[in-house]
Amino acid sequence: MRKVKDRIRKIREKFSKISEISDDKWGLLILNQKNLFYVSGVEGFWAKGLLTPEKFVLFLNENDYEIYRKNFENIDFISVRTYEKNFLKGFKKDFKFSKIFVDNVDGNTLINLKKEIGNIEISDVIEKARAIKDNDEIENIKKACDIARKGIEIAEKFYNEGTIITEHDLAAEIEYFMKKCGSEGTFEDGILLASGKRTANIHAKPSKTTFLGKHQNIILVDLGAKFNNYFSDLTRTFTEKSDNEIKKYTEFIRNLELTCIDKIYAGMKISEISNFAEKEINKLGFKFFHSLGHGVGLDVHERPFINSNSDKEFEENMVFTIEPGIYKANKFGIRFEDTCVIKNGKARIL
Amino acid sequence: MRKVKDRIRKIREKFSKISEISDDKWGLLILNQKNLFYVSGVEGFWAKGLLTPEKFVLFLNENDYEIYRKNFENIDFISVRTYEKNFLKGFKKDFKFSKIFVDNVDGNTLINLKKEIGNIEISDVIEKARAIKDNDEIENIKKACDIARKGIEIAEKFYNEGTIITEHDLAAEIEYFMKKCGSEGTFEDGILLASGKRTANIHAKPSKTTFLGKHQNIILVDLGAKFNNYFSDLTRTFTEKSDNEIKKYTEFIRNLELTCIDKIYAGMKISEISNFAEKEINKLGFKFFHSLGHGVGLDVHERPFINSNSDKEFEENMVFTIEPGIYKANKFGIRFEDTCVIKNGKARIL
Repeated sequence: MRKVKDRIRKIREKFSKISEISDDKWGLLILNQKNLFYVSGVEGFWAKGLLTPEKFVLFLNENDYEIYRKNFENIDFISVRTYEKNFLKGFKKDFKFSKIFVDNVDGNTLINLKKEIGNIEISDVIEKARAIKDNDEIENIKKACDIARKGIEIAEKFYNEGTIITEHDLAAEIEYFMKKCGSEGTFEDGILLASGKRTANIHAKPSKTTFLGKHQNIILVDLGAKFNNYFSDLTRTFTEKSDNEIKKYTEFIRNLELTCIDKIYAGMKISEISNFAEKEINKLGFKFFHSLGHGVGLDVHERPFINSNSDKEFEENMVFTIEPGIYKANKFGIRFEDTCVIKNGKARIL
Repeated sequence: MRKVKDRIRKIREKFSKISEISDDKWGLLILNQKNLFYVSGVEGFWAKGLLTPEKFVLFLNENDYEIYRKNFENIDFISVRTYEKNFLKGFKKDFKFSKIFVDNVDGNTLINLKKEIGNIEISDVIEKARAIKDNDEIENIKKACDIARKGIEIAEKFYNEGTIITEHDLAAEIEYFMKKCGSEGTFEDGILLASGKRTANIHAKPSKTTFLGKHQNIILVDLGAKFNNYFSDLTRTFTEKSDNEIKKYTEFIRNLELTCIDKIYAGMKISEISNFAEKEINKLGFKFFHSLGHGVGLDVHERPFINSNSDKEFEENMVFTIEPGIYKANKFGIRFEDTCVIKNGKARIL
């Protein structure tokens, strides 16, 4: 629980540095369950959290309170309470704030919160903190990467053997295998798997009517596993059965991915590597249609966002993907992606 | 495409009835991809939509434009354009609005939109329209229910045979089987499957260390399948190997579920059925810790939300779950859930 205590301390420090908070009477309402897991270390309940300069309170329904209070019994820096259905109405009476924040809820929830408790603002302090991983988090993501690589191996085996199977059914085999290897889940819409000209569709879902096998000379698979609640994200494109032009592009994109990873260092501007990748892709005669990468952790897509609009820098212990890709509509798509960490000032693949 | 035209017409009608819109110069920015699928009928691209009283424009990146424009070539009520990276900055110059809305984006996106294009408000008009299903949507959800029932059968078989397997591995078997039956995916965290006292945990994830078999006399499984982008949601609790008290409770909750479905009619207040279920559960000596149900469609949880705070009524062609449950912390949990539709004024199980 020392880890969780450190996280809470860091989040409080960040709030104390927000210039508009003139006193110590701020409160952060935590409604995002991944944020709550991050600051409590316990998963499974459905709670609301309140962080203030002095207190960290978890509000649980009576059933969850009975099940989970033992998890917090010996922790002096977290208190657990039950809550009633009118929780939010009583909220402002029980706690006196000059400024209340909430994590990144949806627009409708934000509007309703404003009705219930008056002036409340979105704060992304926890999301920002989550961008920098501790060693346990990195270890979990590393395990999720190992499982994802096993999933990729299944795709490669089917590609090499030319097995006749639909994209949908191969996706089912891969997801099942990753789950048996300990993965707790994958992307919301399942893994992304496309073959032939469908690889040009950046968001292609596996098709139930497109058969792999001798007629498909290219397969793109973009998948992730989940281990101890942490995701991985990997993409491979198999083109060995394609013509020389496609093979040349494939080598180029794979090399570009590895070159980008090699160039990244702690302190480098994120926009710099994104601009570099875009220029290389442009030189090849293609446009770059998506971001170069994104942070990975409790969410598949989280901070840092790796694109040319970023005003941030890479930092030690950030975990993120690098995924350059080129697409020729109705012809082919090629993308390579690995999940990386910055350690000792340099990026390396997990 | 007549279906999509009808949807667009209905959404425009709803906007024309919003009293604060004094003229015909409103615009709705559609960023939610499920909403865009709903009003365009085409899945797969990653687009931005703009609906005005006269136009419906889909903005696609150049790659998606090449792939998907043929889907819209013969449709006179949808136009497709490519967009540049500075899309939002040019947005207000190209279109003259007196009022701009956006669908239910997250709080941070809303704040950024306000910076980019000034005064913009959340509108849930499309989400509200999605609550009432057409026959094709109902047919898809019905098929997703059929697949989900096959998944439930797997759980029942393992329970009856007393197979020794972890909760996690049984979940893997069920998800794989549903996928082979044509399901496109399930819940983001996978299906919910708990045994023994873990059933009391309303949000229990399948455990990698809890073995089913002779020592587990109760299994709760809450799962959904997805067919043609539409979800189903079903829950069963198997307690035949439990003691008589648990069996009595099980019968009570199953009967309560079916009684609720039997009572629901078009025009009934949603809060009325929720209050009825809560009172019945209270009479049994339990509290009711969650909602009685929720709409199901392109999202697993969507409108209508079935709880005591609702000020809405049931309507013809609404699709929703009914899922009463009781929980005794560290002892047991029992829940039954089916996905229902209102047809000819009465609710029936899909």
